[in-house]
Amino acid sequence: MIVTFVHVWVKPKNIDSFIQATIANHKKSIKEPGNLRFDLSQADDNSSKFVIYEAYISEDAAAAHKETEHYKIWRDTVAEWMYKPRMGEKYTLLAPIGMAVWE
Amino acid sequence: MIVTFVHVWVKPKNIDSFIQATIANHKKSIKEPGNLRFDLSQADDNSSKFVIYEAYISEDAAAAHKETEHYKIWRDTVAEWMYKPRMGEKYTLLAPIGMAVWE
Repeated sequence: MIVTFVHVWVKPKNIDSFIQATIANHKKSIKEPGNLRFDLSQADDNSSKFVIYEAYISEDAAAAHKETEHYKIWRDTVAEWMYKPRMGEKYTLLAPIGMAVWE
Repeated sequence: MIVTFVHVWVKPKNIDSFIQATIANHKKSIKEPGNLRFDLSQADDNSSKFVIYEAYISEDAAAAHKETEHYKIWRDTVAEWMYKPRMGEKYTLLAPIGMAVWE
């Protein structure tokens, strides 16, 4: 099971639109067969800073996400709203282990 | 609903012990009434770097975590295994919203 922390920095005027577009992406992403989490959160000390916490059962499932229509729409829609490129950090899940706790 | 990303940097010789102690903390933390997530992951490019992704229904619930016996045991046990102090980043959850998706 793998995790990606996607760090995003959004221009102040585009914050509301970014949240809306990312929630739309969230709703479709959590229906992907290999998706475990797709949580969006906003930094308390910087309303322009977001983290998307993505968990997938495998590298293949995470790669498949990037081939979906909803991912591509999100990527192309939000690109110009960021004031610097987003950054993904790759992690491996150690707990919880076992699918039951994810369902 | 709130999130804390806890960043931890562990001395190489203490990595296995840290994982064990944190999984023990995870098992008890997820039973706290206000806890939504307590996920432990390890960076793919640095086996000394961990993130604990903690989600709670409220600030009060997150504060209550720090009063538990399992938190205090974890904090005191792992302190000397870190090569620099851990760092917590506070976020607010935007998605998913609604308790059902967390259960």
